[in-house]
Amino acid sequence: MIDANGYAAKQIKQPLTPYSFKRRNPLDNDVLIDIQYCGICHSDIHQVRNEWGSSNFPMVPGHEIVGSVSQVGSNVARFKVGDRVAVGNFVDSCGECKPCVNGLEQYCVKGAIWTYNAIERCNGESVPTQGGYSDKIVVKEKYVLHIPDNLPLAPSAPLLCAGITLYSPLTHWEAGPGKKVAILGLGGIGHIGVKIAHALGAEVTVLSHSLNKQDEAIRMRADSFYATSDPSTFKKLRGYFDLIINTVSVQIDLNKYLKLLNLDGTMVIVGLPEKEMQFNAFSLTNARRSIAGSVIGGIKETQEMLNFCSDRNITCDVELIPIQQVNEAYERVVSSDVRYRFVIDILNSLASKT
Amino acid sequence: MIDANGYAAKQIKQPLTPYSFKRRNPLDNDVLIDIQYCGICHSDIHQVRNEWGSSNFPMVPGHEIVGSVSQVGSNVARFKVGDRVAVGNFVDSCGECKPCVNGLEQYCVKGAIWTYNAIERCNGESVPTQGGYSDKIVVKEKYVLHIPDNLPLAPSAPLLCAGITLYSPLTHWEAGPGKKVAILGLGGIGHIGVKIAHALGAEVTVLSHSLNKQDEAIRMRADSFYATSDPSTFKKLRGYFDLIINTVSVQIDLNKYLKLLNLDGTMVIVGLPEKEMQFNAFSLTNARRSIAGSVIGGIKETQEMLNFCSDRNITCDVELIPIQQVNEAYERVVSSDVRYRFVIDILNSLASKT
Repeated sequence: MIDANGYAAKQIKQPLTPYSFKRRNPLDNDVLIDIQYCGICHSDIHQVRNEWGSSNFPMVPGHEIVGSVSQVGSNVARFKVGDRVAVGNFVDSCGECKPCVNGLEQYCVKGAIWTYNAIERCNGESVPTQGGYSDKIVVKEKYVLHIPDNLPLAPSAPLLCAGITLYSPLTHWEAGPGKKVAILGLGGIGHIGVKIAHALGAEVTVLSHSLNKQDEAIRMRADSFYATSDPSTFKKLRGYFDLIINTVSVQIDLNKYLKLLNLDGTMVIVGLPEKEMQFNAFSLTNARRSIAGSVIGGIKETQEMLNFCSDRNITCDVELIPIQQVNEAYERVVSSDVRYRFVIDILNSLASKT
Repeated sequence: MIDANGYAAKQIKQPLTPYSFKRRNPLDNDVLIDIQYCGICHSDIHQVRNEWGSSNFPMVPGHEIVGSVSQVGSNVARFKVGDRVAVGNFVDSCGECKPCVNGLEQYCVKGAIWTYNAIERCNGESVPTQGGYSDKIVVKEKYVLHIPDNLPLAPSAPLLCAGITLYSPLTHWEAGPGKKVAILGLGGIGHIGVKIAHALGAEVTVLSHSLNKQDEAIRMRADSFYATSDPSTFKKLRGYFDLIINTVSVQIDLNKYLKLLNLDGTMVIVGLPEKEMQFNAFSLTNARRSIAGSVIGGIKETQEMLNFCSDRNITCDVELIPIQQVNEAYERVVSSDVRYRFVIDILNSLASKT
């Protein structure tokens, strides 16, 4: 086993504190990665607080992982020591079901093995997975991604969850020239959605609670910006959009937003409210609208997303913090007080001190 | 104006009683139709009871209308006296919006003019529309359909609403060979959905509360049949379907049914519950599923549906009643005690006696 150091929640809702633990030994198909940066995703907080009801402790969160390869197994062909690499939301899947065969491992019918708070099978043994708020990680080659040379590491970390969470539905529902796309919520995932949707050629509108972030959204290349606290927004934009990406993870009046969709328009839910969502059937039927759900993306499309961001020089707007500030950062994420994603400087705050 | 006789609800929730009223005079583009049969749709009952909150009285319901042409305007080219014709849910639309231009008049952004409980513009005047529980109707040629020669009239009447309500989503979401389709609810619209989905080449499963209608569903060419009152149904069929057409107009636990959908599967809502529907975001996100809504179909596809039913000898299973029994029939529809659609014999019970 390999010694690893990180920050963990030892119990539900407890602050994260330093934690030493064991990683599994790398096998022939594995890559050992020195983690340099890890983004903070809102779902890390949901998991630490057991808000989805399936948390196990101690838990080292983190699934927006970037770093460099420090060791490769004898069968590893795609990576060598020193390569800049990334790991996202999952580290294994069955590889045989229809979603896996189609490169959509996140929908594996047996369940993708999440990067933390899951159980990995390794040489017949069950090993809990632990995430990226730590100094190293062992991952099967197939689930490791290349970071293109021109992308700076720290602001690329959130691409691994926030980026692919938006890229996948934007491409699947064909955001592009001639399409009118709304990004509902300009937070960690919304802000990268604006950049990607614009780069795909779509007309991009941000729907945000207030006008506070309007200037920043325009800088990110949004075409327009509306406050959802202003009732006139819903009159002006009625039937306007082909696609709404709903990044808001709290309950909202879906009917108001569904009516902003044009004929055959789709609202894709990528935020995950704890409570049931409600809608009136007429909100869908009167223009053949849809509500869909999407989570992250498969390995193939995640690499495609990284390459796309490389081509267009897209990275995230981040606040870099030492890992010692992770608990404060969680509070600020919950109160939407971050522009736009926290990234933990693992290399300089954790790895160098342990 | 033209004298017409029918049955109307004079006030909200009142029984339907005989009603004499005026139809507008036919114009150059109009067809005057002697109504022979009219189906009873559950939405007639919703409207009479103002359950959708927009009812006007007196109201002559009925939008599953078949009959024969008795007079045509001077500009009418597609119909002649004696032709077997039909009228469905709407009798006009703006003709200029994107949905209208694309033959989807039911989604007209200005609102299709419904066959009853709406206001028609005619020579600059506003005229209330009245439906098919009556002896004659005046309709613009463009909104009148041909009934193919081999289709018997009475059991074809419900094709005009029930039939197109299922045909449109089944074809839009590509039910066909290799596709696994569930019809949820074997009522007036569900039963014709089974026949059409089978004829399109899909594998058809009926999901019904109990097994009571199993033999009849198999006769209608369903491939399999499951009771939704049996919890094992939801285990056996988890992730099985590409498409579920939800014809149930009462509240159900959507999450249970959404989990029956495969990757990228869609549940299409065609029943219209009064209350809000609820779902958990995870039910959609964990297999990129969708919930969509669909209402009836456009004129072009309604004619296509009638021709398709003609080719495959598909009609509805109906109980023919005299109009004097309409109020009893309403009670039986509400308690699902009809196999599978009531059709009012206008010709022999109303027209001959008034």
